[in-house]
Amino acid sequence: MIEQLMSVMFILTVVATAVMAASAAIQGARLELDLFGATVIAVATAVGGGTVRDMLLGRMPVFWITDLTYLFTAVPMAVVMYFVATRLPSGNGRRLRLLMQLDAVGLALFTLVGVRVAQEMETHVAIAVVIGVITGTVGGMIRDVLCNVTPSVLKEDLYATISLIGGSLYLVLDRQIGEEWAVGISFVGMLVVRLIVIARTDMAAESQV
Amino acid sequence: MIEQLMSVMFILTVVATAVMAASAAIQGARLELDLFGATVIAVATAVGGGTVRDMLLGRMPVFWITDLTYLFTAVPMAVVMYFVATRLPSGNGRRLRLLMQLDAVGLALFTLVGVRVAQEMETHVAIAVVIGVITGTVGGMIRDVLCNVTPSVLKEDLYATISLIGGSLYLVLDRQIGEEWAVGISFVGMLVVRLIVIARTDMAAESQV
Amino acid sequence: MIEQLMSVMFILTVVATAVMAASAAIQGARLELDLFGATVIAVATAVGGGTVRDMLLGRMPVFWITDLTYLFTAVPMAVVMYFVATRLPSGNGRRLRLLMQLDAVGLALFTLVGVRVAQEMETHVAIAVVIGVITGTVGGMIRDVLCNVTPSVLKEDLYATISLIGGSLYLVLDRQIGEEWAVGISFVGMLVVRLIVIARTDMAAESQV
Repeated sequence: MIEQLMSVMFILTVVATAVMAASAAIQGARLELDLFGATVIAVATAVGGGTVRDMLLGRMPVFWITDLTYLFTAVPMAVVMYFVATRLPSGNGRRLRLLMQLDAVGLALFTLVGVRVAQEMETHVAIAVVIGVITGTVGGMIRDVLCNVTPSVLKEDLYATISLIGGSLYLVLDRQIGEEWAVGISFVGMLVVRLIVIARTDMAAESQV
Repeated sequence: MIEQLMSVMFILTVVATAVMAASAAIQGARLELDLFGATVIAVATAVGGGTVRDMLLGRMPVFWITDLTYLFTAVPMAVVMYFVATRLPSGNGRRLRLLMQLDAVGLALFTLVGVRVAQEMETHVAIAVVIGVITGTVGGMIRDVLCNVTPSVLKEDLYATISLIGGSLYLVLDRQIGEEWAVGISFVGMLVVRLIVIARTDMAAESQV
Repeated sequence: MIEQLMSVMFILTVVATAVMAASAAIQGARLELDLFGATVIAVATAVGGGTVRDMLLGRMPVFWITDLTYLFTAVPMAVVMYFVATRLPSGNGRRLRLLMQLDAVGLALFTLVGVRVAQEMETHVAIAVVIGVITGTVGGMIRDVLCNVTPSVLKEDLYATISLIGGSLYLVLDRQIGEEWAVGISFVGMLVVRLIVIARTDMAAESQV
C-alpha cells in the first residue's frame, strides 16, 4: 500500500513538474523571451518549490539531483509549450487563462506533495501545512519574480489560502478516511475553488470591457 | 549560566521575530496589500534572516521547523499590526517611522542572535560577524524586495555597517567583560545609532518640505 | 596529481571570485551606489553561485564559511575596483565593457568549478552540467537582480548556453584527453565565444549610433 502510494506521489510530482514548467514556458512566450530564457525560467518554476522545501527540511542533495526524471520532464515540456504558445494568437487572453489553469493544477498537486513530504519527516502538523504552502506557491512566485510580474500569492487572497486550507483538509481526511480519498478530495477541492476564482476574475475583467 | 543565556537568547529571538513581523505588516498596510499577502511577507521577513543563516551553516531542519514558537509569534503579530496600521492615518509618515524603528530593533537583535549562533558553531570570528550581518539584514531585505522597495542595506551606509560594527563590538566585549554586558552594550549601541540615523533622515526630509 | 589539480581548482575559484567581485563593484559604481552597497553586492555576486551549488548538493557549511580566502579576496577586490570604476569616465561604455569581460571570465571559470564539484560528488553527468550552469550564472544573476537590471541569462541566448556547452565539452574532454587539457580547452573555448558575443553586441550598438 505504501509503495503504491509512493508511486502515486511520484506520478503526482512529475505531473505537477510538467504543468508548472508549461505555465512558465507560456509566460515566457507571452513576454517574448527567447527559447533559452523561457526554458531556464520553466525549470526554476517546476523544481523551485520542492527545492526550497528540501533545503528547509535538510533533505539534501535536493530531489531533482538524485532523480533525473524531473529535469527530463521539465525541459522538453518547456520547449514544446514555448513553441505552442508562440503560435497561439496573442491579445485575447487565451494564453493567460491557460497559464493560470495549469498553475492551479500545479498549486494543488505541489501542496499535497509538500504536506506529505513533511508528514514523512514527522514534523508538527502546522509545519506540514506551511511546508505544503511553500512547496505549492514558491515555484509560481519564482516564475513571476523572474518575469517581473507581481506574484499571485501577494496579490490574491485566494491563492495561498487555497493551498493552506487544501493542505489542512488533506491532513484531516488522511486520519479519518485514508490516504487515497484524502489526496483525491483535497486535490479536486483546491482545483475547483481555484478554477472558479480564475473564471470569476475573467468574467469581472470581461464585464469591464 | 549558559542555560540562562540560552533562554535570554531565545527571548531575544522571539522579540526580534515579533518586531520584524510587525514592521512588514505595517509595510503591507502602507502598500495596501490585503491581510493574507501582508501576513505572508511578515512571516518571510521575521524568519528569513535566520533561515538563510541556518542554510549557510547547515543547521537543518531550519530553526522555525523544529520550534513552533516563531511561527506562532509572527502570524498573530502580523495580523494585529496589519489592522492597527490600516487604522493609522496615512500620509504623515508616522507609519513609516514606526516601521523603521521596529526594523532598527530587529536589526540589532538579529545581529546578536546570528553572531552567537555562529560562535556556538565555532566559526572564525570574521565569519561570525558576517553571519551576524546576514541574520540581521536579510529579513528586512526580503520584506523590501517582496514589496518592491529598494532595500535599506543597498541604499544606506549606516544600515549594514551598524550590524557589522555592532557584531564586532559584541565579540570584543564578550571576551573582555562577559556575555551579559556584551549583549546589553552592543544592543543599545546599535539601536541608538540606528535611531539617530532614522531621526536625522526624518529631519532632513522634513526640512526639505 | 589530484592534489595538484585540487590546488589548480582552488586557484581558479579564487580568480573567479575576484573577477566576479570586480564586475559587481563596477556595476555598483555605474549605478552610483555607495561603497558599502557596492561591496555587499560584490560579495553576494562572488560567492552566490557556489553558495547555491553547495546548498543544492548539501555541502554545508557552504564553502566560504570554512575557508576565509574567498571573503578576503572578494572584499578588498570590490573596494579597489569600486574606486577605480568611480574614477573612469562614464558615458563611453568602457566600464560596461570591462564589467562584461570580467563577467565572461567568471562565467567560464565558475562553470568548470561547478562541474568538477558535482563530479567529485559522483552525480549523473547531466546534473553535473546543470550544476556547472548554476555555479556559473547565479552570481551574475544575483548582481543583476540586486542592481535592478535584467539578468543576461534571461536576455541572451549565448550566456547560459555557453556555460552549458562549455561544461559538457569539459566532461567529454576529461574522459578523452585528461583533466588539464579539458580544463584549458573548455575554459578558452567558453571565454573566446563569450568575448566574441560581447564584441559583436558592442559593434551592433555602435553601428546604430
